[in-house]
Amino acid sequence: MTATLALTGSMLIGASDVRGSGGEVRGVNPATGEALEPVYGLGDESDVDTAVSLAWQAFPAYRATTLAARSAFLGTVADNIDALGDTLVSRVVAETGIPAPRVRMELGRTTNQLRLFASVVADGRFLGARLDTPDPDRTPLPKPDLRQRKIPLGPVAVFSASNFPLAFSVAGGDTASALAAGAPVVVKAHSAHPGTSELVGRAIRAAVAEHNLPEGVFSLLFGDGRTLGTALVRHPRIAAVGFTGSRSGGLALVAAAQSRPAPIPVYAEMSSVNPVILLPGALASSGASLGTAFVTSLTTSAGQLCTNPGLVFALGDPTDFLAAAGEAVRAAPGAAMLTATIQQSYVAGVSRLVDAAGVDEVALGGADDTIAACGQAGLFVTDGDTFLAEPALQQEVFGAASLVVRVRDVAQLDEILSTLEGQLTATVHADETDHGTVTELLPTLELLAGRVLYGGWPTGVEVGHAVVHGGPFPATSTPSTTSVGTLAIERWLRPVAYQNLPSALLPAELRDGNPLDIPRLRDGAAE
Amino acid sequence: MTATLALTGSMLIGASDVRGSGGEVRGVNPATGEALEPVYGLGDESDVDTAVSLAWQAFPAYRATTLAARSAFLGTVADNIDALGDTLVSRVVAETGIPAPRVRMELGRTTNQLRLFASVVADGRFLGARLDTPDPDRTPLPKPDLRQRKIPLGPVAVFSASNFPLAFSVAGGDTASALAAGAPVVVKAHSAHPGTSELVGRAIRAAVAEHNLPEGVFSLLFGDGRTLGTALVRHPRIAAVGFTGSRSGGLALVAAAQSRPAPIPVYAEMSSVNPVILLPGALASSGASLGTAFVTSLTTSAGQLCTNPGLVFALGDPTDFLAAAGEAVRAAPGAAMLTATIQQSYVAGVSRLVDAAGVDEVALGGADDTIAACGQAGLFVTDGDTFLAEPALQQEVFGAASLVVRVRDVAQLDEILSTLEGQLTATVHADETDHGTVTELLPTLELLAGRVLYGGWPTGVEVGHAVVHGGPFPATSTPSTTSVGTLAIERWLRPVAYQNLPSALLPAELRDGNPLDIPRLRDGAAE
Repeated sequence: MTATLALTGSMLIGASDVRGSGGEVRGVNPATGEALEPVYGLGDESDVDTAVSLAWQAFPAYRATTLAARSAFLGTVADNIDALGDTLVSRVVAETGIPAPRVRMELGRTTNQLRLFASVVADGRFLGARLDTPDPDRTPLPKPDLRQRKIPLGPVAVFSASNFPLAFSVAGGDTASALAAGAPVVVKAHSAHPGTSELVGRAIRAAVAEHNLPEGVFSLLFGDGRTLGTALVRHPRIAAVGFTGSRSGGLALVAAAQSRPAPIPVYAEMSSVNPVILLPGALASSGASLGTAFVTSLTTSAGQLCTNPGLVFALGDPTDFLAAAGEAVRAAPGAAMLTATIQQSYVAGVSRLVDAAGVDEVALGGADDTIAACGQAGLFVTDGDTFLAEPALQQEVFGAASLVVRVRDVAQLDEILSTLEGQLTATVHADETDHGTVTELLPTLELLAGRVLYGGWPTGVEVGHAVVHGGPFPATSTPSTTSVGTLAIERWLRPVAYQNLPSALLPAELRDGNPLDIPRLRDGAAE
Repeated sequence: MTATLALTGSMLIGASDVRGSGGEVRGVNPATGEALEPVYGLGDESDVDTAVSLAWQAFPAYRATTLAARSAFLGTVADNIDALGDTLVSRVVAETGIPAPRVRMELGRTTNQLRLFASVVADGRFLGARLDTPDPDRTPLPKPDLRQRKIPLGPVAVFSASNFPLAFSVAGGDTASALAAGAPVVVKAHSAHPGTSELVGRAIRAAVAEHNLPEGVFSLLFGDGRTLGTALVRHPRIAAVGFTGSRSGGLALVAAAQSRPAPIPVYAEMSSVNPVILLPGALASSGASLGTAFVTSLTTSAGQLCTNPGLVFALGDPTDFLAAAGEAVRAAPGAAMLTATIQQSYVAGVSRLVDAAGVDEVALGGADDTIAACGQAGLFVTDGDTFLAEPALQQEVFGAASLVVRVRDVAQLDEILSTLEGQLTATVHADETDHGTVTELLPTLELLAGRVLYGGWPTGVEVGHAVVHGGPFPATSTPSTTSVGTLAIERWLRPVAYQNLPSALLPAELRDGNPLDIPRLRDGAAE
C-alpha cells in the first residue's frame, strides 16, 4: 500500500468522510513542481458547522473521561502515527520538500510530544486542584469550603502551520495540548500538505474509535483560510483557537475572534527574527567556529523555522565570524522551499536586503535550477547606525537569509534592543570575559523574548516542561503562554471554584481524601 | 486631623502631587446630595505619560526586589491603610453611602488581601520555577539545560470600581496582585470616591518611600474614563490592564487595547446576574427561610455587588419562598445608592421589569425621601416561557432588584441555562432528594460560571487560594483567570525559559541548589 492509494481527498468530519464542494486543492511537490494525487475538496461553512456541532456534542463525555482513559487515548494517537512510518515520511517529503531525515526527527518529536502530554494528563497536576480549609466557627462570618480545579474551555480550533507538517499541524502541539486538556479539536489543515494531514487525521480518528470516544472529539477540515477559517473562529461553539503562521494570518484570526458576540482567546504564534548577540570575548576566541555553526542553524529546513536566526548583532570584531559564515553560506546548496508562494516571498525579502542602502552582501548560497521552488541562502552585513535608521531591516525574511549588524558598543546595542519587537528567542554568545555584559543584558533579553539562550542556536526547540515557545507581541498574540511544552495545556483551561459542595457531588479530583492521588494545594501549600 | 483636612485634590504621580488641569470633580454624598471637599483636578494625556514613564523607569528595580523585600512592602501597604482607621471609614461612608460596618469589613478584606499576597510573594510558588534536567549524551542531539520562571509583563493600569471603594479600587485586588507580581501600577481612580482614593493612594506612596523603592512603583490619576482612561490603556509602556465595572466600559478598554500597535491583555470583570436555582426538595423543606435569606443577600450594599443574585429559577412550588421573600423586601428600607447616575439606571431597570409583559411585581421595598440617591428594593416573578421569549429579562439590573422565574421542569431549566450568558457565579439550593438533579446540572453550571455554590448566596466572596471571581464572557473578558484570590497574580506574569545559562548568571530562583528554597518542578514533578 502506498500513501497515495490510502488517501481519499475527503475531509474527516467526526467518523464521516466528507467530500468538500467549495473548491479544490492538491499537494504540490515543491522540488519538482509536480501536482500530487488525490485532489482535495475544500469545505464551506456548513462543513464547519457540522464539525463544530459534533465537537460540542462530544465535549461533555470527552471532558469527563478519566485521566487514565484520556492519557491512554493520547498514547494510541502517538502509536497510530508512528505506525504510519515510511508511508507518512514519504508523503511529507513529497509535499514539503523537507529532507527525509528531518521529517523522521519531526515525526519522533510529534509522537513524543503526544506521549509527554499523555503523562501530563495521567499526573493530574494540570488540573490545578486547590482546596481551602473551611472554618465554620470563624466570626463574623464562617469561612466557606472552597475548592478549585481547571476545566476545558470548550471545543478548540487548530490551524496547521506550513513549516512543521507534523509537529505544528494536525497532531501537533496545539492539538496534543487541547486534547490533553479535555477539549475536542477541529483542525483546519494547511493546504500545502493535504495528504500528510489526511494520513495523520485518520490516525487520530482511529484512536478515537479504538477508545470508544464520541466521534466529534476530532475533525479535519480543508478550506480557504479567509472563508472557512474565519467561519471556524466565529462559530459560537468554538471556545479558543490555536494558530501558527504569518503575522497577517494570525492578526486576521484575532480580529475575527474579537468581533464575535462573545470573544474568545486566539493563541497565535506569528513573527520572530530571533536576534543573536555575539559578544567580544566569544567573537575573539571562537569567531570562525561560531560563523560555521551559525550557518548550519540558518540553513536548516531552508531557513523556514519560526526560530531561524534572522538578525545577528556583533559587538567586537566580526571578521573571522563573517569569513567563516560567508564560506559556509557559499557552500550551502539550494534547497526546496515549502511552497512556490513562500519561495516568491523569500526572493522578494532577499531583494530588499540586496537593495537596501548601507547593507552589503557577504555571501549567497548555491542555486539549483533542478529545484522548482529553490531557496538560496543569503548573508548580509550592515552597521548599527544603518540598522537604527531603517526599521524595515528588522522585518522577518522567512527563509535562510540573515543580517549581521556591526554594533559600536553596549550603549548602541541597548538602543537597538529597545527598538526590537517581541521575539520567540534571544541568544547571546559569550565567554567568561563577557559575563559582566551578559548580566547587564539579561533583563532586557528576558523582556524581549520567551526563551533566552546562552550559546547554541535558537532553531532547536526542546519539548519538555521548562521550555517556552512564546513571547511578547508580535512573536505571539498572547505572551502569557507557550505553544510548545507542557505548560501549553493551560491555554485551553479555566479555573472553576466549588463552594460548600458535599464531597460526593464534587469532581473526583477535589473530593476528600484525594482519591485520584494527584498533586493538590491545600491552603496554598502542597497537600 | 479630619480626612477633609488631609486631602489635597491632587493626583499622586510618583512622589509628586500634581494638580490636574483637565477639569474638576468632587465627591458627592449620595445620601445627602452634598458635594464634598476638596475639589479634584482631572489629569490629561501628559499626566498619563508622566506616570507611566515613571512606572517604566521603576520597573527594572521593582521587579528585581527580593521576595522578602517585596513581601514586606505589601505588608507595609496594608499596615498604612489600616492605620488610616476611622479617617478612611468615614470618608468612604461620606462618598459612597455604604454603611460604616460594611466599610469596616471591606477595609479588613482589603488589607487581608494585601497580606495574603505578601505571603504568596514570600512563598515563591507563583514564580512557576521549572527545571528540566539536561542530558549532554543524548543522541542524536544533546538535551539542553532548560529552566523556566515567570516574570511580570510590565507596568499595569488599574481602573477602580465604584462599588468596592477599597477592595476593588486603589489598593484592591488588581493593585495587590500586580504589585505582588513585580509590576508597577498606575491607578485611575473612580470619580465617585476621590477622597477615599487619595487617602489610600497616600498610604501606598508612603510604603514605597519607606521601602526605598523607586517612586514610579505607584501613581494615582484622576480623570475621565474615555479620554484619560483610553490614553492610559494605549500608552506603549503599559503592558496589561485590570478593570472592574460596566460591560460597556470594559469593552471600550478591550477595544482600545486591541487597537494598539502591540495589543495587550485587559482583564475586565463586567456583567453578571448570578443565577440561583431552587430545587424542589429545598423549596419544600425550607422555602420560607430561603426567601428571607435571599433578600438579605439581595439587599446587601443596596444590591450593588457584582455577585448580586439577580435571577432565581424555582423548580417546584415557590409559594413559601415568594411569601417570605416578599415580606422581607417590603421590610427593606430604602438605601443610598453609590451615585445619582447609578440610582437613575437602577430606576430605569426596575421600570423595565414593572412594564414587562408576563412579569408580576411580588413586592417593592421601602423608599426614603430623605436619601438623595435612594434605591428601593424590588422583587418580580415570571414563568419560564416568558423568560425564554424575552432575552432582555436576563440583563443585569445593578441594584437590589431580582426576578424569580417559575420553571416547569428540568428540561425547561436546561433550555433556560443554555440561553444564559457567562456568569461570575451559579448557585443551587438542594436537599438530599435533589442530589440527582444537582449531579445532572453541575456540568452545565461549571461551564456557565466561575464559581458554583451549593447552598448559601453568591454575594460573599471569600479571598483565598481556591476562590474564583471570574467566568465566561461577559462576566469577564478573559475567562482563564480570576480577579480575586491568589491565582490572580498569574494575570500579570509570563513565562521565560533560560537555555544553557551558567547557574551563576541565572536568576536566583532557578540556580542550582534552590538557594531561595521555593517550590520548583524538576522534570515535571515537585523538586
